[in-house]
Amino acid sequence: MGRGMGEGDMTQLIYGIHPVKEALKSPHLQFQKILISTPKPSPSLQYILEIAKEKSILVTYMDRETIDKMVKGGLHQNIVGIIEEIHYMDLGEILSCWKREGTKALFLILDGIQDPQNFGSLIRTALGSGVHGIIIPKDRSVGITPAVIKTSSGATAYMPIARVTNIATTLDILKKEGIWVYGASGEAKNLIYHLDLDIDLAIVIGAEGKGIRPLVKKKCDCLFSIPMKGSISSFNASVSGAMILYEVMRQRYGVNKR
Amino acid sequence: MGRGMGEGDMTQLIYGIHPVKEALKSPHLQFQKILISTPKPSPSLQYILEIAKEKSILVTYMDRETIDKMVKGGLHQNIVGIIEEIHYMDLGEILSCWKREGTKALFLILDGIQDPQNFGSLIRTALGSGVHGIIIPKDRSVGITPAVIKTSSGATAYMPIARVTNIATTLDILKKEGIWVYGASGEAKNLIYHLDLDIDLAIVIGAEGKGIRPLVKKKCDCLFSIPMKGSISSFNASVSGAMILYEVMRQRYGVNKR
Repeated sequence: MGRGMGEGDMTQLIYGIHPVKEALKSPHLQFQKILISTPKPSPSLQYILEIAKEKSILVTYMDRETIDKMVKGGLHQNIVGIIEEIHYMDLGEILSCWKREGTKALFLILDGIQDPQNFGSLIRTALGSGVHGIIIPKDRSVGITPAVIKTSSGATAYMPIARVTNIATTLDILKKEGIWVYGASGEAKNLIYHLDLDIDLAIVIGAEGKGIRPLVKKKCDCLFSIPMKGSISSFNASVSGAMILYEVMRQRYGVNKR
Repeated sequence: MGRGMGEGDMTQLIYGIHPVKEALKSPHLQFQKILISTPKPSPSLQYILEIAKEKSILVTYMDRETIDKMVKGGLHQNIVGIIEEIHYMDLGEILSCWKREGTKALFLILDGIQDPQNFGSLIRTALGSGVHGIIIPKDRSVGITPAVIKTSSGATAYMPIARVTNIATTLDILKKEGIWVYGASGEAKNLIYHLDLDIDLAIVIGAEGKGIRPLVKKKCDCLFSIPMKGSISSFNASVSGAMILYEVMRQRYGVNKR
């Protein structure tokens, strides 16, 4: 698992059998080509090559030494994918996904998550919690990278993700659609236990350590916190997200409704 | 962050200013010595050296090249700690922690977590959720390693952790203390929403992918699952743990009590 080097370089590398297989499923990724470093592909490698053929992705043989160098000693299992472009949905598409489904809205807005592991974990949890789409900002945020895809255990392939220029403006659009915007903030006195989450809802989670930016915070209809014990200053961002999405699921399940 | 090499080698390396500082706070770790590779320590390095002096830990100067090699190119910030031994509490001590506090018991039993990131994350979440102690098995489980300490953001320093030979026997001991043992299992028909968790309780979470072992499962008073949507097969182990501990906190907070 790695990234192409340099800021200007738009390609990214993804390697290893499972990661490449998952990446091939993702609507967010477009392969430039696939490199293999064995003349005798194993059955699982063979399977990937068949998918690549169906998708008309170019497969090239390259010697093992060159591939070792490309992935800087990572475990590539004789296969490296070169990813051309990451495709994000736009806000309109994400809203359509929700409207098509006809259930109460549930969006996750990640205001500046930096850590690929947190982002990947949140994507997986969101998929399992019935989130209709994730919205991230174009700047100061990790995007969909191979490390994110790997941590999400393939969930990135199924989760609509939009990247927007301005989160504050996006919240205005969501509000016009009748969606309530609730922000998680460690300092908020309003506890999550007291919220009604069985409404059309977008949850905002801020950056690790920094939280939601002030301008975005102002746009939230409500700020809330998760009570904490002991001597820790905060829960990890992906853990907070898991707790919040669990609470939404619980309330929507119809048990212990307020 | 790294580990000492080889199975027989009992020492581990921990490096970088923040990780070493956090490790010095931990009752689980004992330093053999600290190596520094600068003759002019920065203020934050100076601070660590003062703690080391208070704790009578030997500090030795070593050239940068040797330290670079020791940590295999990791970011050591001129400081490496050599950890002698990891101390675990015993079950009796953990039970005493609970009895001293006089609140409803909450123990977390991790039956074979392999990934240091999951273990570290669970320690941090457990500390923030009022868990009295974590119990792990001696075999087939990650122990307290530098990577675990790092992911736990220092929470390892405050969380009582016991390592036992036999989890099944341990569950019998807990039951004799009047503690109920509830195991998380994806296949269980009993949903977490229907459980009363405001009782003296030990939660069992199984290994990533594999779940709780059959013998341990049998000892559980009850098995339960967290409902899931979409096309994922399971939540990540640290995410499941976060959701379960959140539910315990919520019920104990006294809101929406069944």
